Amino acid sequence: MNNIFEVRATDDQARVGVLNTAHGRIDTPAFMPVATQGSVKAIAPDDLKSLGATILLSNTYHLMLRPGTQVVHTLGGLQDFMGCHGPVLTDSGGFQTFSLGRLQKVSEEGVTFRSHVDGSEHFLSPEICLEHQGLLGADIAMVLDQCPPYGLEEAQVHEAMDRTHRWALRCKEVHSKEDQSLFAIVQGGVSTELRLESAATLMYMNFDGYAVGGLSVGEPKASMYEIASLMGKTLPHDRPRYLMGVGSPEDLVECVAHGMDMFDCTLPTRVARNGALFTHRGRVNVDSAAFRQQSSPIDESCDCYTCQSFSAAYLHHLFKAKELLAYRLASIHNLRFVIRLMEDMRRAIVQGTFAAFRERFLSEYRIADEEVRRSQKEKWLRRR
Amino acid sequence: MNNIFEVRATDDQARVGVLNTAHGRIDTPAFMPVATQGSVKAIAPDDLKSLGATILLSNTYHLMLRPGTQVVHTLGGLQDFMGCHGPVLTDSGGFQTFSLGRLQKVSEEGVTFRSHVDGSEHFLSPEICLEHQGLLGADIAMVLDQCPPYGLEEAQVHEAMDRTHRWALRCKEVHSKEDQSLFAIVQGGVSTELRLESAATLMYMNFDGYAVGGLSVGEPKASMYEIASLMGKTLPHDRPRYLMGVGSPEDLVECVAHGMDMFDCTLPTRVARNGALFTHRGRVNVDSAAFRQQSSPIDESCDCYTCQSFSAAYLHHLFKAKELLAYRLASIHNLRFVIRLMEDMRRAIVQGTFAAFRERFLSEYRIADEEVRRSQKEKWLRRR
Repeated sequence: MNNIFEVRATDDQARVGVLNTAHGRIDTPAFMPVATQGSVKAIAPDDLKSLGATILLSNTYHLMLRPGTQVVHTLGGLQDFMGCHGPVLTDSGGFQTFSLGRLQKVSEEGVTFRSHVDGSEHFLSPEICLEHQGLLGADIAMVLDQCPPYGLEEAQVHEAMDRTHRWALRCKEVHSKEDQSLFAIVQGGVSTELRLESAATLMYMNFDGYAVGGLSVGEPKASMYEIASLMGKTLPHDRPRYLMGVGSPEDLVECVAHGMDMFDCTLPTRVARNGALFTHRGRVNVDSAAFRQQSSPIDESCDCYTCQSFSAAYLHHLFKAKELLAYRLASIHNLRFVIRLMEDMRRAIVQGTFAAFRERFLSEYRIADEEVRRSQKEKWLRRR
Repeated sequence: MNNIFEVRATDDQARVGVLNTAHGRIDTPAFMPVATQGSVKAIAPDDLKSLGATILLSNTYHLMLRPGTQVVHTLGGLQDFMGCHGPVLTDSGGFQTFSLGRLQKVSEEGVTFRSHVDGSEHFLSPEICLEHQGLLGADIAMVLDQCPPYGLEEAQVHEAMDRTHRWALRCKEVHSKEDQSLFAIVQGGVSTELRLESAATLMYMNFDGYAVGGLSVGEPKASMYEIASLMGKTLPHDRPRYLMGVGSPEDLVECVAHGMDMFDCTLPTRVARNGALFTHRGRVNVDSAAFRQQSSPIDESCDCYTCQSFSAAYLHHLFKAKELLAYRLASIHNLRFVIRLMEDMRRAIVQGTFAAFRERFLSEYRIADEEVRRSQKEKWLRRR
């Protein structure tokens, strides 16, 4: 495939680019809402359009188990199936196989696991994961990788990284879909040496784009930023860089500063369903009594449907009454918050004012440290 | 208040009318989606607009307990609170007080009960229920009534009816809101004598509209239709007739035939959340395997967002995967089905072809007898 990416502007390490796919173009830096099972939780395609989402991520692991990638293919691929006619990136299924599936056996050939849905046995190899992603109709496919949890011995991280490289090469060798890009995944944990080795090895194989995997899995924030910065300086300038599983507002700003172009994360929608909403002053819990009678919206500067239509008091009431509408309205707000943040960052980069933007945002956005740490910990525990 | 209702066309007992309220006009026969706690479950105001909903019902009992009618009043009344700027009818709170609250004492003065939310004690009288409905900003308020469950001795039904009449008179005497209509509620169970007595007593008091209460509480369908027919012949021609708690497609058609003008029911949204969807051929369960690969929508003749955008297979998948989007899409479909049914009936009445419409609809619409009976029974058990 021809080079799908073009850098249009830079500001220090941060860059604005255009990513071309068979289903449309994406301005980067971009945030990808996560349609785990073929649906962004509580959100419909027309919501996504009005949110300004330009690309979705969907999970091969979930879709191969239910409804089956062949079913999705028969129904016209993910875009037709979901009624979302823009670009879609699918992961390889590897990450969830290790975190959700009941692992049976990992060999050089691939991974045998049992479904968390019905206990049935499945096998995933580099070649098979690409078959699934082909059936799903992904615009961007990911190589099968082995993502080690944080805290392993370096030897084990090294071993997983080496396997990831061999699997990436096998993916590269069988990949032939003209209308689908293939991204490699850099591994190597929090070791700068391993990360550099991984990046160099994969760059030599020449992929359409490069993802940074294995972050946001429980390591300290400083380590995540350090690796993101290193990758921003190492990965090829003319290819998109995708930081996997990262999506809190402060992380998005920091990692765009380090030259990352694409992000996905379930955090904005997951915390929204618990009533935790992003505002320009930080995260707030809308079910707290402070909002019981607030006639203004959650964030007066927000242009989302929720903030344009409803008081914080109404949202507070919906959460207290456990009304289903609460989850949609909160998810719309948090997704719009991060998507708009990407828009604002692109503008600042083009204008050459990104440093000032970053400083202002991070000084105003009160990071709920305790909360973030707890949520990261829960996330990590869930993924083990 | 001046007469708010005008009959525009009749076809045998069925009629088309216009009901005027402070927040807009309603073409009747009309179905009112139920916003129990200030939200039609899983549905947002912009959904309601595109569904063609012209009036909502909201429950005083729920709102007085949470968030409190004073809070709703402070936030501009139900219309501003919910972000739905059309007409709203509120019930009196009586029905839920008896069915959901933990009843403490019923006296001539009113009802003492404990909240099902937090156990706090509350008192509802005819005067207090109108205060609450005033604070909620209802366009149409209902009198406090005592709705006896199906199967009581006639003497008990009689007693509840007499009290309903005395409470109706007290409501009538204190009601003074110029921009709010007040409807009485005919009781009397399945006894034609009591129903006639109740209608006559309340008609003598001269209300803006008349509701038929105490149906769809477990009695045989034939009894419901018999009472609806009797009321269609008895209640004043120039006042709206509201059949409370009825809303299955077949019941709507039958009771419009008997001259009823307004309906409310949680059934369309409740069964939708269980995957039971209305089609012109009857009710289907979208989670059944038959829909696993159906690329066409649930009902090809339907103009709702769900049917215009998604295959039955996708909806099937969303239910199997327990995705929140399933509940919204299914609710949109069922609500649009009944609202469009009302539109079709209004057209048929104006054209003088309602008898043919009724016959065709009921012959095509396969009533899932077993299912309907089970659901009616569950409903009744829940309400006791």
